Amino acid sequence: MNTFGRLFRMTTWGESHGKAIGSVVDGCPAGLELKEEDIQKELNRRRPGFSEVSTKRKEKDEVQILSGVLDDITLGTPISMLIWNRDVNSTPYGAIRHLVRPGHADLTYWEKFKIRDWRGGGRSSARETAARVAAGAIAKKILRKFGVEVIGHTIEVAGIKAEEVPLERIKENRDKNPVLCADIKASAAMVEKILEVKEEGDSVGGIAEIIIHNPPAGLGEPVFLKLDAYLSQAIMSVGAVKAVEFGAGFHISRMKGSEANDPIKMENERPTFVSNNAGGILGGISTGQDIVIRVAIKPTPSVSKPQRTINIKTGEDEEIIVQGRHDPCIVPRIIPVLEAMAAMVMVDSMMMQGLIPRSFIDK
Amino acid sequence: MNTFGRLFRMTTWGESHGKAIGSVVDGCPAGLELKEEDIQKELNRRRPGFSEVSTKRKEKDEVQILSGVLDDITLGTPISMLIWNRDVNSTPYGAIRHLVRPGHADLTYWEKFKIRDWRGGGRSSARETAARVAAGAIAKKILRKFGVEVIGHTIEVAGIKAEEVPLERIKENRDKNPVLCADIKASAAMVEKILEVKEEGDSVGGIAEIIIHNPPAGLGEPVFLKLDAYLSQAIMSVGAVKAVEFGAGFHISRMKGSEANDPIKMENERPTFVSNNAGGILGGISTGQDIVIRVAIKPTPSVSKPQRTINIKTGEDEEIIVQGRHDPCIVPRIIPVLEAMAAMVMVDSMMMQGLIPRSFIDK
Amino acid sequence: MNTFGRLFRMTTWGESHGKAIGSVVDGCPAGLELKEEDIQKELNRRRPGFSEVSTKRKEKDEVQILSGVLDDITLGTPISMLIWNRDVNSTPYGAIRHLVRPGHADLTYWEKFKIRDWRGGGRSSARETAARVAAGAIAKKILRKFGVEVIGHTIEVAGIKAEEVPLERIKENRDKNPVLCADIKASAAMVEKILEVKEEGDSVGGIAEIIIHNPPAGLGEPVFLKLDAYLSQAIMSVGAVKAVEFGAGFHISRMKGSEANDPIKMENERPTFVSNNAGGILGGISTGQDIVIRVAIKPTPSVSKPQRTINIKTGEDEEIIVQGRHDPCIVPRIIPVLEAMAAMVMVDSMMMQGLIPRSFIDK
Amino acid sequence: MNTFGRLFRMTTWGESHGKAIGSVVDGCPAGLELKEEDIQKELNRRRPGFSEVSTKRKEKDEVQILSGVLDDITLGTPISMLIWNRDVNSTPYGAIRHLVRPGHADLTYWEKFKIRDWRGGGRSSARETAARVAAGAIAKKILRKFGVEVIGHTIEVAGIKAEEVPLERIKENRDKNPVLCADIKASAAMVEKILEVKEEGDSVGGIAEIIIHNPPAGLGEPVFLKLDAYLSQAIMSVGAVKAVEFGAGFHISRMKGSEANDPIKMENERPTFVSNNAGGILGGISTGQDIVIRVAIKPTPSVSKPQRTINIKTGEDEEIIVQGRHDPCIVPRIIPVLEAMAAMVMVDSMMMQGLIPRSFIDK
Repeated sequence: MNTFGRLFRMTTWGESHGKAIGSVVDGCPAGLELKEEDIQKELNRRRPGFSEVSTKRKEKDEVQILSGVLDDITLGTPISMLIWNRDVNSTPYGAIRHLVRPGHADLTYWEKFKIRDWRGGGRSSARETAARVAAGAIAKKILRKFGVEVIGHTIEVAGIKAEEVPLERIKENRDKNPVLCADIKASAAMVEKILEVKEEGDSVGGIAEIIIHNPPAGLGEPVFLKLDAYLSQAIMSVGAVKAVEFGAGFHISRMKGSEANDPIKMENERPTFVSNNAGGILGGISTGQDIVIRVAIKPTPSVSKPQRTINIKTGEDEEIIVQGRHDPCIVPRIIPVLEAMAAMVMVDSMMMQGLIPRSFIDK
Repeated sequence: MNTFGRLFRMTTWGESHGKAIGSVVDGCPAGLELKEEDIQKELNRRRPGFSEVSTKRKEKDEVQILSGVLDDITLGTPISMLIWNRDVNSTPYGAIRHLVRPGHADLTYWEKFKIRDWRGGGRSSARETAARVAAGAIAKKILRKFGVEVIGHTIEVAGIKAEEVPLERIKENRDKNPVLCADIKASAAMVEKILEVKEEGDSVGGIAEIIIHNPPAGLGEPVFLKLDAYLSQAIMSVGAVKAVEFGAGFHISRMKGSEANDPIKMENERPTFVSNNAGGILGGISTGQDIVIRVAIKPTPSVSKPQRTINIKTGEDEEIIVQGRHDPCIVPRIIPVLEAMAAMVMVDSMMMQGLIPRSFIDK
Repeated sequence: MNTFGRLFRMTTWGESHGKAIGSVVDGCPAGLELKEEDIQKELNRRRPGFSEVSTKRKEKDEVQILSGVLDDITLGTPISMLIWNRDVNSTPYGAIRHLVRPGHADLTYWEKFKIRDWRGGGRSSARETAARVAAGAIAKKILRKFGVEVIGHTIEVAGIKAEEVPLERIKENRDKNPVLCADIKASAAMVEKILEVKEEGDSVGGIAEIIIHNPPAGLGEPVFLKLDAYLSQAIMSVGAVKAVEFGAGFHISRMKGSEANDPIKMENERPTFVSNNAGGILGGISTGQDIVIRVAIKPTPSVSKPQRTINIKTGEDEEIIVQGRHDPCIVPRIIPVLEAMAAMVMVDSMMMQGLIPRSFIDK
Repeated sequence: MNTFGRLFRMTTWGESHGKAIGSVVDGCPAGLELKEEDIQKELNRRRPGFSEVSTKRKEKDEVQILSGVLDDITLGTPISMLIWNRDVNSTPYGAIRHLVRPGHADLTYWEKFKIRDWRGGGRSSARETAARVAAGAIAKKILRKFGVEVIGHTIEVAGIKAEEVPLERIKENRDKNPVLCADIKASAAMVEKILEVKEEGDSVGGIAEIIIHNPPAGLGEPVFLKLDAYLSQAIMSVGAVKAVEFGAGFHISRMKGSEANDPIKMENERPTFVSNNAGGILGGISTGQDIVIRVAIKPTPSVSKPQRTINIKTGEDEEIIVQGRHDPCIVPRIIPVLEAMAAMVMVDSMMMQGLIPRSFIDK
């Protein structure tokens, strides 16, 4: 199931050390202005090799649009996007070819398919997510036409919590530091901590928050494709994610009903909520408030400390030291992916609600 | 989207105060022994009106199988199950017909459809979930043939945490108290707390844990229908759920890679994990270990304390007091629903993996 | 796969001699006026037992709407419809329980599921199609709001061809005779022929034509869900159908390109086709012209003449004489089913094109 | 909807005169030997420019496999295949950029998307089908492992009918002539006729027959994804197809039940059919006999004779003469496409029936 979405769909493909990776976006309305730069801009945010807290693999991740666009205008036909893999070095993986890397999908792919691509994790590599970001860039472009924004930022790394800041500050600050944290002070501590564990040959995780700003009310399909259910699938499908919560999340389970319910009042002749414990979704349908999602991300499983594992060929216990180029903290690079997934869900849900036309062109 | 599943599917229908509710299960293998009692047993676990901590609405929830079964054997054709609504009393809802109940889906259904069933929440009522439990009973019966069990229990109510107990104890203890908590001591405190807030006209939430015991390895479809992604959608589609986590969940984001990774060793000639921080899923594919899911459930939004809201007809601010018969704590009644959803996902994933035949009959 | 459709979906269930049959329609817009009479009217057109050329099984086919409608207005939630099986007589089938009826699905169901419902064909009975007609009645009601009509009629029975008549005459004449043929003279010959073969214990087939009048242009999803591809699946999924053609159909394969192409001209400031060899669909997308489909229907396989077959239990050759109550010609009773399927496709395709709102209510 | 299939899926993309076309195959079992030559062989059968009865556009259609395969073995991950467009000449289309070509999808794409790719038909060009053939080559390779073959041949061109010949003769003869007709004498007359109309600047159509040899019994999903329904959608989704029939097809509508039913007897301890009027499918499920499909193909709409049409920009009536390089008869080049579609359906149906494992590798 490498296709995601109902009316607005992406199909992604590609292994980490294969020839290329790519994405086919189907169901994009005709008449959208779309250039390779639009995609590239988002890819650059996820691109490896450009910060001290990320992997040293240097991929320019240059995207080519191969179909679906004529003279920078979408045709309504599938948009195929291609990224060649350039800086591939499978050598370090050769040595551990038959060893199962703990925390990775090595064993499970092998259980599922009885074969696995040993080169850099193959399809289960985080590299796969670049194709999602490419598709998400189109989704974001559509959302922007409707005034909807998807903003991700880091709120915790290695247990270091950022202070809550308003949306405007998040947008202003998060790109000023390599961990995408809007609390500048906390971000410095986070970077320091990441470099420290990197030195140890270890890694750390963290928590990201995704805010969907200014969504239309009425999105989400009861009862099985509720907006939060759909977003959960999307978010949880990203590697390294282990938990997702909406609004007050786990905390709401400790509140009383009278505290948890968001009161409603009229404001500017519109029903308005006084608080947002619900995280913008009630009964699986968007209220029109900002949708707030928090996402737990595990530490990068590739660590150079010795770990217990097995040799799949010999069936013996062994010790593994994972070499190669890895992110000591994957949180900042996952954020564009989470944004992409949230944007895909939003466009698809808006289409199911009949809010997006098949063509932006007026005859 | 009232259909759930790819190969093993349920379609549910029905409003809380309509004539009936029901479920159509499609894709069930032929040759499964199935009686109405099999379904009824599960429905009785979710049934309202039978404990001091649940609503007073008394529904016997008697299920009829209308198709797909001949002489107690499934035919491979759709299994239609019907439950008549009996103890319906819409009177208390008449008075608040135009008021939007905070914490409920009243406003959002109205935003989506420009109409809503004001009688007891209509389709957005928890009553809808009985149809899921009916379908889930079939899923569980199939899983049992393969030695797979789905066990839910309460681990926290109103901030009162249960102690961790081993699986055998959970199975032994959880049905001995109305909150389905395996820590008997904590369960007493939970019940006391629930009755206390009930007295105040308020409600509480809690946390449930779902354990999928003895699952096959290799389940889950990368990259978008990973097993945890699919389970998240399933779990989050249940009303009142606001968060979901797997294995160490949010806590894993504070661990180092070297701590978070579950070491692997050979045991009885099988690859075996030394710990289970991953919650039984790596790279979106089951490892064969128990799958551990924790679910945050909000307090019942129906509280009889006055709340601020609006009148949708007049567009004025008003105060609402929600009468009717409500659960002061929905956690124990949600657990069979969460189990049902997890069981549906497991059967469907096993079918996609080719582990379940189209017929259990040998020619 | 007992669910049909993408955005407008029906899920049907039920065996011929089971307790009931039914249909769940999901995705119907809110705010549609809908009464049981709307459904009943269409069911009566397919109902058995009311003409000399149809089976003697007398089913009133009384439909109940169990959900999705409040005060005769749809809610946007699933509409569950139920028809109890009343006039069930499984006795004649007991005697041939282990014999495979030639021309029926007895052997194939048994190959697929290793079990089959021997009572009246079970799920493979034409009775299943009543549930489609119930769902189609809702589709037709929606289409009518947009001025789209689906009209089926008989154009050939047992080799007796009807003359071509204009659409207005079809609508005027077809219900005046039991074979639904608009050529009154031919219809008399058809009835005579049917009664003659019935006397012999045999059966005949024929050809139906379905006209979708006044469809919007632009429907159909290239490249795999083209409108004609989608309609073909829908039509061919009806039992007894063995061929389907659009516009000039098989005949067009003998024309030259210069003859086959429909010339285009402006008329009333709209692009207009001079002829309709294409049958209203070009490149899989509707042109706006009437869509013309012809459907070959095989003779009813239940004949009381002796036939060679096998006993599935003993594995011996045997002779079978199929008793029971059967239609000597199924064509007129299939027509409402074909109309229903075409109507389902049209509503679904209009929804995918964004032409039908989620609610017919203006806030 | 540029994705086809449930468990075995292809997503195709690309415009006729865009940069490239391609196909992503998802759900292919792991452990299948697969080389680019396997794909190329099938593409060469559809390739333009290599016979006197086909277009002069010379495309080598060289395929590259970009993912899903390691050391010539499939990984179970998506297989992305790419074909660059090389011999593109859009010049002749520039002159008729605003003219609607009769018999083509020009007007309907424009109605649907309010924009169209004027260069060689864009997405609606027959070039799109190369991507289907690439995917179908994988499907065929899988089928071969199970002894299933898909064989297409021409049985009529421009009204010239081929004699019926047995399957062995079809396989022996059809590739000996450019029209893929197994009746050598008829094929000569067909070629002569095609060259004659080509001289006139006109085109002809014909009828293809697709035989699925040695299929397993029990395939097809009642009631809406019956095998014939699914095949019909697949076949009818190919451009230029206007009719499809199974077994005796339209002819069966003129038979009596006692003649149409295929008698059954035991042979070699297997239920065996004496004839095959059903075309290998009963009640939508395969019987195990050869599946026989006949397909009507319209004459190529691109003819250089003057035709009446309109200018979409000016809204005026105009005359059009379609230049460019076109097939005077598309039948032989469509046959590999029809085979590919039938093969896709067969693999998908076998997977749904549980007959194909997720991996061909034994651990």
